[in-house]
Amino acid sequence: MNALNIVEYTHTLGAQAKVASAQMARASAATKSRALLALARLLRENTAALQQDNARDLAPAEANGLSVPMVDRLRLTPKVLETCAQGCEQLAAMPDVIGEILGMKQQPSGIRVGQMRVPIGVFGMIYESRPNVTIEAASLSIKSGNACILRGGSEAIASNQALARLVQQALAEAGLPEQAVQLVQTTDREAVGQLIAMPEYVDVIIPRGGKGLIERISREAKVPVIKHLDGNCHTYVDDPCDLAMAVKVTDNAKTSKYSPCNASESLLVARGVAADFLPAIGAIFAAKGVEMRGCAESLALLQGVDGAQLVHASEQDWSEEYLAPIISIKVVAGVEEAIAHINRYSSGHTEAILTTDHRHAQQFLREVDSASVMVNTSTRFADGFEYGLGAEIGISTDKFHARGPVGIEGLTSLKYVVLGDGEIRI
Amino acid sequence: MNALNIVEYTHTLGAQAKVASAQMARASAATKSRALLALARLLRENTAALQQDNARDLAPAEANGLSVPMVDRLRLTPKVLETCAQGCEQLAAMPDVIGEILGMKQQPSGIRVGQMRVPIGVFGMIYESRPNVTIEAASLSIKSGNACILRGGSEAIASNQALARLVQQALAEAGLPEQAVQLVQTTDREAVGQLIAMPEYVDVIIPRGGKGLIERISREAKVPVIKHLDGNCHTYVDDPCDLAMAVKVTDNAKTSKYSPCNASESLLVARGVAADFLPAIGAIFAAKGVEMRGCAESLALLQGVDGAQLVHASEQDWSEEYLAPIISIKVVAGVEEAIAHINRYSSGHTEAILTTDHRHAQQFLREVDSASVMVNTSTRFADGFEYGLGAEIGISTDKFHARGPVGIEGLTSLKYVVLGDGEIRI
Repeated sequence: MNALNIVEYTHTLGAQAKVASAQMARASAATKSRALLALARLLRENTAALQQDNARDLAPAEANGLSVPMVDRLRLTPKVLETCAQGCEQLAAMPDVIGEILGMKQQPSGIRVGQMRVPIGVFGMIYESRPNVTIEAASLSIKSGNACILRGGSEAIASNQALARLVQQALAEAGLPEQAVQLVQTTDREAVGQLIAMPEYVDVIIPRGGKGLIERISREAKVPVIKHLDGNCHTYVDDPCDLAMAVKVTDNAKTSKYSPCNASESLLVARGVAADFLPAIGAIFAAKGVEMRGCAESLALLQGVDGAQLVHASEQDWSEEYLAPIISIKVVAGVEEAIAHINRYSSGHTEAILTTDHRHAQQFLREVDSASVMVNTSTRFADGFEYGLGAEIGISTDKFHARGPVGIEGLTSLKYVVLGDGEIRI
Repeated sequence: MNALNIVEYTHTLGAQAKVASAQMARASAATKSRALLALARLLRENTAALQQDNARDLAPAEANGLSVPMVDRLRLTPKVLETCAQGCEQLAAMPDVIGEILGMKQQPSGIRVGQMRVPIGVFGMIYESRPNVTIEAASLSIKSGNACILRGGSEAIASNQALARLVQQALAEAGLPEQAVQLVQTTDREAVGQLIAMPEYVDVIIPRGGKGLIERISREAKVPVIKHLDGNCHTYVDDPCDLAMAVKVTDNAKTSKYSPCNASESLLVARGVAADFLPAIGAIFAAKGVEMRGCAESLALLQGVDGAQLVHASEQDWSEEYLAPIISIKVVAGVEEAIAHINRYSSGHTEAILTTDHRHAQQFLREVDSASVMVNTSTRFADGFEYGLGAEIGISTDKFHARGPVGIEGLTSLKYVVLGDGEIRI
């Protein structure tokens, strides 16, 4: 497609999505559930065919020397597809929040005022290689009564096209408009530029991917963006704390998986417990091959740990999201300094305090300015499923509209509903 | 100031606001109330002095031939100041929502997850001539635990400076940082450009003023904007309806005041009641000098009304916010056509249906895509005070974050709070 055709194409997608969104907003809970259950069934029935379509993406990816983790993210195994199908079924079983009316109260004038939860309208989703995101986004869009336009990574185009066909088949089976979920069929990058600049059709953009992609979209978008930048999460080990619990939770927060955004990248330790705590956690990190980038004080306490990979932390380390077996470590005076450090260097994703002091816990919860703040548990829990949202379309590090894991409610808006009996304003 | 100095100046304001916002977020409900009550007292004690400062704005405004309504908006009468003082006292008396925790529930892993209401941080407010907006914004900012940077109209600079001094005095009396409310002291337009482009310091911009100002800010802002574009509000008279109530409410919606954004600018009438309803409302409009811009069918029914100013509506009229004694009128087949017309031409502010049919009322509430949807009452009620919000900082026509009248909650964010007892994620 040339540039002019892309403008025309994306505007057509936008106009179709807008029309479909009005029909989706009206759809009953039962109809939306029917579509979700049909989609689950179709994913299972077509597992073999989907793997063939997926192979058309995998072959060039491997031929082009994509890294093994990248190829793995691209792969639609029967297990991945079954998880997608189960996700659709779980969403179908959840209560429908569209149309709920909150806080209806009578006012002195006699009018009654409340707020009705309604779909946002049309969202655009821009994501990278994992094709199962197509199903996650489509199913959340259906459940929340929105229409969406999906732009997946070019390396997953064949897989995404096959999945999007099944989504549209499921919508049609339930009597819903196929254009409620549209996949951008071109891999031209100009289509992204267009998609984020159509406020007349698209109400919000949700980018999922690397920091560079998200920064570019935030900078250029002409519509609101629910964005997730990096996850520089902190675990703070307080004085006093339960040392055994602190070791167990810190280990989980860092080493249970290195790549997720909710893994802890930085460890803060209160001076009063550092001499006991640091050698204990240091031995675990050493055994698991986690490099420790510490302040001078923490390195001195870790010096005796067998096999420890110790590096002097630079100023840059305090802001770093490693997504790797590396952790920065700093000894602090106490909860005040920990909070100040976090509010200065964190990306605002998730932070935890491990403490037995009630006032420290309360202060940390109140004053740490991040999307999720935790007491005595692992930052790895920052996740839509673990929070009971049923599903998540992303994790927002914005303070605006949706903050933290974004589920169905993040894709809705509250409009005021006013019921009167002929009242006039004097 | 030259451009370089303005950059430096606005960055200083931003950095100071950011520091102050952390102190405001920690402030107790009692401390914030003390500041609000001190401000109310200072406004009353300084009424005469404020009028003198105000006179320094009024003299050049009158000399420069500003219109009478513009000069009136600029004027700080004892009544305006008393209303400001009462507004501060009302806010002080309202419950404090900061720190409230919503929906804390245990999850299968054992962690308990809820959401804590916290201030957004720093907001920037850009407004035009009315200096009392300085007090409204400052008092809402204090109550909601935010810091704010205020940029009022250049024609009100002396009044705004005097008011901002009292605000800072009230903050200091309560032991709160004076820099929690800062007025931009230069009238250079470049300061606005800077204020909307400092995401490191300012979390959200709230513009209040003409459509041109708001469009420019939305286009250029590098941070989220809570915006209010125009208020092209509709009243739809359904078949069936209570004709006497419909006449009374429609009259109020259009003629009680012409300039507010919640006045109805367009009247839709179901064909089945048009022959009865239109001559009745037309007689009132004619008597009050309201020009009627109608479709052919409505004009035919209004032809016999004594003294009616009738004009053929153009396509442009359906989108127009007149803010004047003019109304557009269209006969429609029924509720379906009314909803379709509104969703096409409305600015998404406020729309009302006047009906006795329950299903029509429900359909209108559900399907009209505006910030406020009303049954059997006047669009003029779309207002923070009338909705029980205590105060309003503006009316949002966005679907995002805050929609409709924006009160204290619109200036807050919900962060997730997770309480554990050593749980780890497996």
